[in-house]
Amino acid sequence: MMTTQRSPIDPGPVDVIVVGAGYAGLTCARALVDAGRSVVVLEARDRVGGRVFTETLPSGVPVDQGGQWVGPGQEHFASLIDETGCTTFPTWVAGEALELRDGLLHRYEGLVPTSDKDGSADTVATLLELDLLAQEVSPVEPWSHPDADRLDRQTFAQWIDATVETPIARALVTTACQAVFGAEPEELSMLFVLSYAHSGGSMSSLIRTSGGAQERRIHQGAQAPALALAGMLGRRVVLSSPVVDIDHGRSGATVSVAGAHPRQFHAGRVVVAAPPSVTGRIGFSPALPGDRMQLIQRTPMGSVTKIHAVYERPFWREMGLNGQLVADRGALRSVFDDSPDDAGVGILVGFVAGSEDRRMEGLGVEGRRSHLLGELASAFGPDAAHPLEFVEQRWSSEAFSGGGPVAGMGPGVLTAVGPALRRPVGVVHWAGTETAEAWSGYIDGAISSGIRAADEVLAALVAPAGTGGS
Amino acid sequence: MMTTQRSPIDPGPVDVIVVGAGYAGLTCARALVDAGRSVVVLEARDRVGGRVFTETLPSGVPVDQGGQWVGPGQEHFASLIDETGCTTFPTWVAGEALELRDGLLHRYEGLVPTSDKDGSADTVATLLELDLLAQEVSPVEPWSHPDADRLDRQTFAQWIDATVETPIARALVTTACQAVFGAEPEELSMLFVLSYAHSGGSMSSLIRTSGGAQERRIHQGAQAPALALAGMLGRRVVLSSPVVDIDHGRSGATVSVAGAHPRQFHAGRVVVAAPPSVTGRIGFSPALPGDRMQLIQRTPMGSVTKIHAVYERPFWREMGLNGQLVADRGALRSVFDDSPDDAGVGILVGFVAGSEDRRMEGLGVEGRRSHLLGELASAFGPDAAHPLEFVEQRWSSEAFSGGGPVAGMGPGVLTAVGPALRRPVGVVHWAGTETAEAWSGYIDGAISSGIRAADEVLAALVAPAGTGGS
Repeated sequence: MMTTQRSPIDPGPVDVIVVGAGYAGLTCARALVDAGRSVVVLEARDRVGGRVFTETLPSGVPVDQGGQWVGPGQEHFASLIDETGCTTFPTWVAGEALELRDGLLHRYEGLVPTSDKDGSADTVATLLELDLLAQEVSPVEPWSHPDADRLDRQTFAQWIDATVETPIARALVTTACQAVFGAEPEELSMLFVLSYAHSGGSMSSLIRTSGGAQERRIHQGAQAPALALAGMLGRRVVLSSPVVDIDHGRSGATVSVAGAHPRQFHAGRVVVAAPPSVTGRIGFSPALPGDRMQLIQRTPMGSVTKIHAVYERPFWREMGLNGQLVADRGALRSVFDDSPDDAGVGILVGFVAGSEDRRMEGLGVEGRRSHLLGELASAFGPDAAHPLEFVEQRWSSEAFSGGGPVAGMGPGVLTAVGPALRRPVGVVHWAGTETAEAWSGYIDGAISSGIRAADEVLAALVAPAGTGGS
Repeated sequence: MMTTQRSPIDPGPVDVIVVGAGYAGLTCARALVDAGRSVVVLEARDRVGGRVFTETLPSGVPVDQGGQWVGPGQEHFASLIDETGCTTFPTWVAGEALELRDGLLHRYEGLVPTSDKDGSADTVATLLELDLLAQEVSPVEPWSHPDADRLDRQTFAQWIDATVETPIARALVTTACQAVFGAEPEELSMLFVLSYAHSGGSMSSLIRTSGGAQERRIHQGAQAPALALAGMLGRRVVLSSPVVDIDHGRSGATVSVAGAHPRQFHAGRVVVAAPPSVTGRIGFSPALPGDRMQLIQRTPMGSVTKIHAVYERPFWREMGLNGQLVADRGALRSVFDDSPDDAGVGILVGFVAGSEDRRMEGLGVEGRRSHLLGELASAFGPDAAHPLEFVEQRWSSEAFSGGGPVAGMGPGVLTAVGPALRRPVGVVHWAGTETAEAWSGYIDGAISSGIRAADEVLAALVAPAGTGGS
């Protein structure tokens, strides 16, 4: 399936250079090729997929180290999964979930932990309130909300402090914030949080498994459709080619690549399909407009580490548990059953997010492993401490992602420089899930952003199609 | 005085490579050379000085497009000014200042506008309160404050909303925030603001002219001492050499430079003397630790445009005005008399900062000129609309600064990743005014940060001095 080459013959000038071979870049390139345009995709890493990466462990078990789920309403991703011959299965949910609160374990069913009636009711009420507020904020132009300035001046933490009554609900909403954004509530603008939630339907749909963003998984791994796209694009995808400079003008752009084979590519248009902060690594001549430069600096990636612990079997299912854990403290605040569809082995996937992730920096790989296995054991019992395999994926140390799962905006950013997010700069266009008009932050949003950028470029290219070198 | 060369002969391996020839990098390099070490300074721009840049206008008048003042307590900068044979003179303050409030002009004397007694008293009380709070927060390790988490969760805007009673004082404190940080109060953590203020003594000292950070100017221009340092360093300073990659290990580092003459330099240690967000443009192998990567993404530069309007004479002095303006709305919120010491011409310098600066993006050079001259005229009279010369310096569009005047931290950043600010990563050390332990954000802080980094490197270098190639 993977037919990309590391060093194709220099293709000469093309119609469009796409920077980044994540879902956004690959989708964009495919749409441009389908429209008869010549395209080169330049990818910094030695693989495609961006923040989506399926790794096969030494034992042969594939695990998704990055984005992995598909849910209702994600039609772009669902179509691509179908088209590329991939198949899905439901995330395991049968059984009770675990709540770890004040050091005590509780079992519960449904979306929200129930060990404390008031806390549970308050959490549900908070989610409802967030969902109602989010419906009023456009995910496309949140700065157009009549109350945008006030909402953007407020942090999510401020809203929580002012609105959420019980400590339990505050802790749960904070945990949800960390899991969704990889960031703490005080780091995020309320306007941004509402816009992001609306982009994926509602906050509730973002945190749901069944009926929400974590509903289904892909048998072949979430990177498989990206690999299939790369296969279709063939030699147009050039790996291990970090773009360091983009010289752009009215007639086109010259894109310089570093790495083992430094060289230059020329095109009429460029689509940069990477998180805003990662685009900050590229030198632009002439320099980008001030609002774009500010946006790049004010859209930091979240912090997240994803861990997988592989066991002989999903032993928690035998205990009536579904493998889900929500914790109010500790490093691992959310855990899911990530076993393969046939349950040939049992796998737990856990997330260390936000400040917890940053605190774990100093522990080192072994220190984190031992600490996190201890936390798994205190939730799922002593068997959890002895997995067959254990891997961590620290997105915060991935140079070409800068963190994960998504970028977040602090107070004041959307209203000040939000419009720079999608606005082209001359012949340079922007894609990537952070620019998506729906499901921003998700694979589905990456795909639709690639299509939107391709549409922009096709409308801008006045020369007849098919004149390029591909 | 300026003897640096663009293309020296490749110097072979050196003891230390300094990245950035602003005041931090130049001072660091000089200290290392004084200690007998071989040094190369790699500068991306075709000039030294970083955010300090004295430009001679077509008429021959020199103006400081960036940092320009020196005040009491800035002993590092004062010593360097002396040492390099430069001289200072007081910023012009004789006469009354102007306050533009609700569209009406008022004259006042002293630090704070006085047109409204309650507003004035409230502003003074607010500054006092900020000064008291700042004294409790360490400028070196603000995260060690017993209440650091709460203060870092709070934005400066939240504190203003909760503390400042009158709309007039709120507007004045907001204007001060924009002028000092190039950012809006909602973008900044209260812990950061207090730490920054303490770093320069107090918030009052940051905003004072006489007795404060704007007290004196340099006859030769604020870049002159930097040019003198560069002259001393001679061929060690390599201009037009943007660093794109730093490969680092136990035994040293290889630094790759792009630009017209791509090449590599080798050294035992590297000092990166640039704003944190600008260091994000450099690819590090191995990748930087997660907390450092987060810091880079969460320390955006402010937005500021500096304008100079040159007139035949400082006509406002004849009207009893000192050229200072504080406005509660509009683009130009603060203006100073920037005439040369001999008043051979009259010059007003104005600042467009924070959101105002971002809003002016779309106007273009001519649109901004005409808008800003209109604002000057409405304050200083119709003569102000017709300067002999008018220049703008948009730091927000300067690729190798990313904005100005300084970097700011939003809520949650200092407590989460603050310690990564100065902590070396293997053989890579960090300098720059953002890392300063005193006068962070000022030229003085840049200088002391360079000395501190040089001390770190000298302590780390175990080989006998003088073994390098310089």
